[in-house]
Amino acid sequence: QWMMLDWKPRRPDMLVDSFGLGRIVQDGLVFRQNFSIRSYEIGADRTASIETLMNHLQETALNHVKTAGLLGDGFGSTPEMCKRNLIWVVTRMQVLVDRYPTWGDVVQVDTWVSSSGKNGMRRDWHVRDCITGETLTRASSVWVMMNKYTRKLSKMPDEVRAEVGPYFVDTPPVIDEDGRKLAKLDDNKEEYIRKGLAPRWSDLDVNQHVNNVKYIGWILESAPISILESHELSGMTLEYRRECGRDNVLQSLTTVSSASVGGLLDYGNVECQHLLRLEDGPEVVRARTEWRPKHAKSFGNVGQIPAENP
Amino acid sequence: QWMMLDWKPRRPDMLVDSFGLGRIVQDGLVFRQNFSIRSYEIGADRTASIETLMNHLQETALNHVKTAGLLGDGFGSTPEMCKRNLIWVVTRMQVLVDRYPTWGDVVQVDTWVSSSGKNGMRRDWHVRDCITGETLTRASSVWVMMNKYTRKLSKMPDEVRAEVGPYFVDTPPVIDEDGRKLAKLDDNKEEYIRKGLAPRWSDLDVNQHVNNVKYIGWILESAPISILESHELSGMTLEYRRECGRDNVLQSLTTVSSASVGGLLDYGNVECQHLLRLEDGPEVVRARTEWRPKHAKSFGNVGQIPAENP
Repeated sequence: QWMMLDWKPRRPDMLVDSFGLGRIVQDGLVFRQNFSIRSYEIGADRTASIETLMNHLQETALNHVKTAGLLGDGFGSTPEMCKRNLIWVVTRMQVLVDRYPTWGDVVQVDTWVSSSGKNGMRRDWHVRDCITGETLTRASSVWVMMNKYTRKLSKMPDEVRAEVGPYFVDTPPVIDEDGRKLAKLDDNKEEYIRKGLAPRWSDLDVNQHVNNVKYIGWILESAPISILESHELSGMTLEYRRECGRDNVLQSLTTVSSASVGGLLDYGNVECQHLLRLEDGPEVVRARTEWRPKHAKSFGNVGQIPAENP
Repeated sequence: QWMMLDWKPRRPDMLVDSFGLGRIVQDGLVFRQNFSIRSYEIGADRTASIETLMNHLQETALNHVKTAGLLGDGFGSTPEMCKRNLIWVVTRMQVLVDRYPTWGDVVQVDTWVSSSGKNGMRRDWHVRDCITGETLTRASSVWVMMNKYTRKLSKMPDEVRAEVGPYFVDTPPVIDEDGRKLAKLDDNKEEYIRKGLAPRWSDLDVNQHVNNVKYIGWILESAPISILESHELSGMTLEYRRECGRDNVLQSLTTVSSASVGGLLDYGNVECQHLLRLEDGPEVVRARTEWRPKHAKSFGNVGQIPAENP
């Protein structure tokens, strides 16, 4: 796997000057940025939250575009996209978390893009512990273009392809796509529901829309607290179906679709299905999450050298 | 003012190696850390949110304690505090924001401690634009000790004073204390109320309590959206009265106590009074916020060199 080539172990005292704004590595095709996990990014388990990890992915994606000189007026849009009033929207996101970092850990995020079908772009991320090189998280996402006024999806104009195409890497996704269809939840089936979710002013991005990462927080708001206490999120697949603006009110639905023998709180993995929808019906996000018992990972790793990566 | 001594303008290319974990400057009494404002820390106005600023304050405070070698097992507690099951709790916080930074800006946070009364500690912060040296934010807070099992306030034991005392700086607060009493809001007077605020799992800190910064978000949830749209928060005084645990449900109350002639949405500053309380009555936080019209600050600065600092 070509992604393995560039990683070398480094000493803690070599990290200090790596906290900059990131840089291009590996023949100009991979953008790399380090993040020091801050005290306010960790939760009750002393580990970074999934939202923190997703924020780091967003930040590297934007800095990648910026460093490549492709940041137009917009927030991630290229100059040719700006001319045509096009913005990127994410349609699918898949994340695998092997281990959550803790306060003071330094993570190294690599990101790169490749083509996805005729009009899309795939963006992948590989997050490692900066000191040990251990893989912490991998993520893969699919993006298409939308006209910001008509809110209709757009083909990728040739001029935009000429801008971004040279950065496309010809490589398979960093994680195997979980191709299983995301179930449509309905009112009769769902077990947990959280109503009245409304964006706060501070949840809005510069387009006055709710940030993608915020959706994940809302999805998890309907997950039963017993799972949050006993398990940690190990994987997640999201399908974004519709935008959410400042005046929308949402509902979050969760169904626990598989649990181990002996019930939810016992040992073993859990899978959930989720739906985020507007109060009057339309679906905003469908999702599936996988959970493993807390500490399962660290027990499993006792005395082992973590595998380099897949 | 002694706080001015150490600041020198620096070129952008000198910033890269300043992104580390912070360091002690100025005769060992001031801790300094730089933060690059990230894309996910800015909101609809393209500026960092007040919560982001407060998070940076929290992070520097903890790193100060850590760098001084005074971080015991706890989250900010010194070794002698850990032995006695003592934790720090904040009782008062005052913040003045001159300008909010935006994505890509680098801010330099200085923090130091001094004594406050017989049993308290004051912690101040001075936040500057790392390139221009312009003052962005100043904040001052008062902390006391609490036994984490009995939840009772404690005197400062001599052994703890011996640990932290050598770091005390003999200097007045970085901002003049706003000594006006915070009003007690009641049900008959309040104009805006937001009920049913409950901590999410991810809002809890390692003590399973709600983080101080989270309170600010909740306080602002009852502020009228018209103020959030037209004004920016220029100052804030908070009085923390009671903790909030994972099972509490809160109400946020806001009264607009002074607005300019011509009504709320017109030019001029606005002052609000706030109360965060448990649903069954007890007060959690009292607060006062001051707001100035958006862009007032930047208009005011056209063609001016920002004053160095107070």
